[in-house]
Amino acid sequence: MSRIIFLNGEYKDYNNALTHVEDRGYQFADGVYEVFSVKNGKLIDYSGHIKRLTRSLNEIKIKHPINIRSILFHIRNVIKKNMIEDGLIYLQITRGVAKRDFKYSKNLESTITIIGNNIPSDEYEKSFEKGISVVTTRDLRWKRVDIKSLNLLAPVLAKQFAYEQKAHEAWLVDDDGFITEGSSSNAWVLIGNTVYTRPISSSILNGITRKTLIKGLSKYGYKLKEKKFNLKDIKKSKEAYITSATQYVMPVTKIDNQKIGNGRVGKFAKLFKDIYLESVQLSD
Amino acid sequence: MSRIIFLNGEYKDYNNALTHVEDRGYQFADGVYEVFSVKNGKLIDYSGHIKRLTRSLNEIKIKHPINIRSILFHIRNVIKKNMIEDGLIYLQITRGVAKRDFKYSKNLESTITIIGNNIPSDEYEKSFEKGISVVTTRDLRWKRVDIKSLNLLAPVLAKQFAYEQKAHEAWLVDDDGFITEGSSSNAWVLIGNTVYTRPISSSILNGITRKTLIKGLSKYGYKLKEKKFNLKDIKKSKEAYITSATQYVMPVTKIDNQKIGNGRVGKFAKLFKDIYLESVQLSD
Repeated sequence: MSRIIFLNGEYKDYNNALTHVEDRGYQFADGVYEVFSVKNGKLIDYSGHIKRLTRSLNEIKIKHPINIRSILFHIRNVIKKNMIEDGLIYLQITRGVAKRDFKYSKNLESTITIIGNNIPSDEYEKSFEKGISVVTTRDLRWKRVDIKSLNLLAPVLAKQFAYEQKAHEAWLVDDDGFITEGSSSNAWVLIGNTVYTRPISSSILNGITRKTLIKGLSKYGYKLKEKKFNLKDIKKSKEAYITSATQYVMPVTKIDNQKIGNGRVGKFAKLFKDIYLESVQLSD
Repeated sequence: MSRIIFLNGEYKDYNNALTHVEDRGYQFADGVYEVFSVKNGKLIDYSGHIKRLTRSLNEIKIKHPINIRSILFHIRNVIKKNMIEDGLIYLQITRGVAKRDFKYSKNLESTITIIGNNIPSDEYEKSFEKGISVVTTRDLRWKRVDIKSLNLLAPVLAKQFAYEQKAHEAWLVDDDGFITEGSSSNAWVLIGNTVYTRPISSSILNGITRKTLIKGLSKYGYKLKEKKFNLKDIKKSKEAYITSATQYVMPVTKIDNQKIGNGRVGKFAKLFKDIYLESVQLSD
C-alpha cells in the first residue's frame, strides 16, 4: 500500500491526497499518465516513459506542470518515502480544476499526482512460471489510444470481463477481426519462427516495453514482423506474450480457453524475458 | 458559481469538495453523470434523466449509491442552498475509491457528487436570437456513447476545436461521413418539411431533450424522420438545431462556415422551442 502521495508539490499522507471534484480529470478524463516499473530500487526505461508522457501532454495541449528534472526528483522521493524496492510509480497529470465546461481555458494549473506501490518481488516470477490466460473481446475504445490518457472506461470493462472469466487479460479485437492490443498491455504471438506484434498507429499504445523488446530481439537476430494478426493467426501460434511496464514479457498459455502450443510456458518466453531485462535502461 | 456541493451525504463548501486521487472516476473515467436543467426553480424532465442515469449505472455495473427518492431530496437541497432559480444540476456517480487496478471489486462504495450552478435567465434567449455556429470534426469517441459516462476526452477536444474556430458546438462525423451528434448535444436538420435526427443506437446518447421534442413534434403533426444525415444533406437543409438539457432547442445558423438557409434563425426554430418547452415535465 502506498503511504505517501505526491500531489501538486506536497507530500501527503495517503488518506489526505485529495483533489477537487471539479478537477477536469474527474469530470472529463482530461488528463494523461505513465506507469514506471521499479526493480531493485531502480526505474526501468525512465527516459522512454517521460518522452511518451511529454507527447501525450502535447497531443491534448495540457500545460507541462513542472520541468522534467523535478519530476524525476519527486519520483525518487516517492520511491524513498514509500520504501519501494520492487514495485511501480504511477504518475498522472490532469488539465486542472475549473467550473465544469467541455471547452477549457489555457491558463489552468495542471494537477500532478505521483503514487508509489510496492509489489512483492516474486509476484512476477510466480505469474511467469504458470503463464496467463487471455480472452478476446471487442475493442470499444476511442480512436486515439496512442495518447496515454485517462479515457479508460473501455479497458476497465474489458479487464473486468477477463477476470470474471478467470482470465488475466483481455485482448481487444477491432472491427476487422484483428487484435489491437491487451486492455493494459501489448499483444504478441510467435508463428513459425517469427514474432508478430501490431504496428504502431493511433489504434494501439506505443509501448515502451514493446520498443525495448523489439530492440533486444533485433540485436539477437530474432525474426520480428510488425504486422496485424487475427484469431486465425492465434490458432497457428506456438507461443504468445503480453508486454507492459509492470508485466515485462509475460507468457500467454491460453486464449479464449484454447491452449497456445502445449499450454505451458514456451522456451522462447524465457529467452525473450531475459533479452528484455538485459535491454532496459536503469536509472537510480 | 456553485457555493455548496453535495458529496457522499455531506454538504461541503465549494473549496472543500474534495475526493481522493484514487477515486476511480479520476484514474479511469469510471463513472456516469446527468445534467438537469432548472427553470424557474423547477427541474425539467427529472424522471427521464433519472431513468437514463439508472441505465448508465447498470450498463457498467456501478452500485446505486442511494435510493432514487433521496437523490431528488439532495438535488432540491442543492438548488435551495445555491439559490438556483435558473441554471443546472450536475450529478455524478463514480465506482468509488480503490488502489489503482483496471479490474474492480464489487464492494466499493460509489462516490456521488451534486453540483448546482446558476445561469442568467436571459442567456439562453440571447443565444437563441443569434443562433449558433457549428463545425464538423471526426467522431473519435468510444463505441458506447449511449452510456452517459465520464469517458469524455474526445468530446472535450471536439468542443475546444469548435471554440478555437469561433463556433459553439462541434458536430461529430462517423467513418461513413454521417453526423452522429454534437459534442454535448443531439443534432437535427430540417430538409423540405421533414425534421431529421439520427436514430438511437450505441453511437449517440439517447437525449432526454431529443425524446421530449420528438413527442411534441409528433403531437403537433410535424414530419420527423429518425434517419442518419451527412454533409450533403446539411447543404440541402433550411434550418438546423441542437438539443440538450441546458440548450433546449437551439438554432444552428452556420455549419462549417456555410450559412444554413438565409443564415438567420428560422421560423421553425421558434415553433420547435415553444413545442419543446410546452412538452417538458416540471418537478418542484
